[in-house]
Amino acid sequence: MILIKEPNAMHDYVNASKRTGKRIGFVPTMGFLHAGHTSLASLCRTRESCDEVIMSIFVNPLQFGPQEDYEKYPRDMDRDTSIAEKAGVDVLFVPDASAMYPAAARTKVEVEEMSQALCGVSRPTHFRGVTTVVAKLLNIVNPDVAAFGQKDAQQFFILQRMVADLNMPVQLVMAPIVREADGLAMSSRNVYLNEEERKQALSLSRALVMAHQMIEKGETKPAVIIQRMTAIIRQQPLAKIDYVAIVETENLQPIQTIQSPALIALAVLFGKTRLIDNIII
Amino acid sequence: MILIKEPNAMHDYVNASKRTGKRIGFVPTMGFLHAGHTSLASLCRTRESCDEVIMSIFVNPLQFGPQEDYEKYPRDMDRDTSIAEKAGVDVLFVPDASAMYPAAARTKVEVEEMSQALCGVSRPTHFRGVTTVVAKLLNIVNPDVAAFGQKDAQQFFILQRMVADLNMPVQLVMAPIVREADGLAMSSRNVYLNEEERKQALSLSRALVMAHQMIEKGETKPAVIIQRMTAIIRQQPLAKIDYVAIVETENLQPIQTIQSPALIALAVLFGKTRLIDNIII
Repeated sequence: MILIKEPNAMHDYVNASKRTGKRIGFVPTMGFLHAGHTSLASLCRTRESCDEVIMSIFVNPLQFGPQEDYEKYPRDMDRDTSIAEKAGVDVLFVPDASAMYPAAARTKVEVEEMSQALCGVSRPTHFRGVTTVVAKLLNIVNPDVAAFGQKDAQQFFILQRMVADLNMPVQLVMAPIVREADGLAMSSRNVYLNEEERKQALSLSRALVMAHQMIEKGETKPAVIIQRMTAIIRQQPLAKIDYVAIVETENLQPIQTIQSPALIALAVLFGKTRLIDNIII
Repeated sequence: MILIKEPNAMHDYVNASKRTGKRIGFVPTMGFLHAGHTSLASLCRTRESCDEVIMSIFVNPLQFGPQEDYEKYPRDMDRDTSIAEKAGVDVLFVPDASAMYPAAARTKVEVEEMSQALCGVSRPTHFRGVTTVVAKLLNIVNPDVAAFGQKDAQQFFILQRMVADLNMPVQLVMAPIVREADGLAMSSRNVYLNEEERKQALSLSRALVMAHQMIEKGETKPAVIIQRMTAIIRQQPLAKIDYVAIVETENLQPIQTIQSPALIALAVLFGKTRLIDNIII
């Protein structure tokens, strides 16, 4: 596995690869890798038939709010390097924040409306940070395919909108959420949870399973489903709900009647730890 | 000369050209072509050694304010086609507004601070429209070099910032302002001027020549130069000054002492017609 730090070196490397006809897959991450991330590398290799898989690790300061966990976000480069190599990553791109955001930088990419929905309510500058850094990474790495996890479903739909709107020559693909054996969606932030929080956090996936079952049984009213999900989570004394919502995947606006495709998404705080989870129906 | 309307067709055409090793030059315009535009095509061909020159004509609704001249902006495709062909343009890209901005589009690219300076004061959404459409055009056309006129100097410095900030793989080049014999900077909007306005508009280039002379004679105080320029323009009864400014090219902020490189720029209204002009020292 090759390690590259400089954006220009990364760009030159890929261009040389592409000139030999290689198909490039890209997995942008913030590191502290888990099975969700490695599943994205596998997806590029197998389903998307990429000849070369590039993974970036960059804890992007621009997508953290001033009161958020940028400083203490978990980092472990030695562990990540080992995991990425075992996952079959060919190139690990690890730029410095100073190379990604020189002092003179002033440009932001924003997907309006969609960035203010769901997580955007409590994290108003988050998705602007995500779209800005992903636009940069896509220009640097110039992949044929970029893979993202469904765990961050809002992020995926916003990025899909950005790529279409800016005519970026890349295909985005989404991989299913990878869960722990007991149902908790994998997240680098799960390490923040203490034992009791970790146990109560299972209510998130339980609420989503319940929503799925209700819809399979014919429930079509979002309000009824949301009420039931909310009740399940509220049984957990440590849970503080940010939102439970059912929205259209196209624009992330609330839907009136259940119809495909819809995103059922939630964000819940346990102490200072904010967890998200979702299903797409 | 080939005419292409569809963004996807444009992208495919360039990719095929680039695979054969051709170097691509790009001249984005809003049409109603004059010698300033054709000089950009020549610059791509000669100084920048491009094998193929692509020009786009697109009157971009996103860069016009609600009270501005989008509807009546001059358009003449037959004339433009003939001028472009004579100027040695190989491909004319003429997308429809509906193809550039589908109803679902939500993405904006903004270069903060620089977009609020100079023309950004009276045209607060203008440069966001410019950066958004140029980001799109650069992704569609994927050129090696894109040429812009110094006439829109603020636009150039903002776009240069955008391209650097977003790691876009293109080189931007700036061509000198092309002037009428009497000194008026060429502009598609000059057709709006009546005879008297046209005559008084010469005060713009006169003021810039005066600024240049003052600096050559050793004047270093921007305020002194601006005062003199303002006086020259105010002698014209139809002239209404929007701004006269001396700024750093790097960030477009006012400078305290004349030093290279600085941009001396002005915007002046004659009736409803807003003219801009500048020199770089």
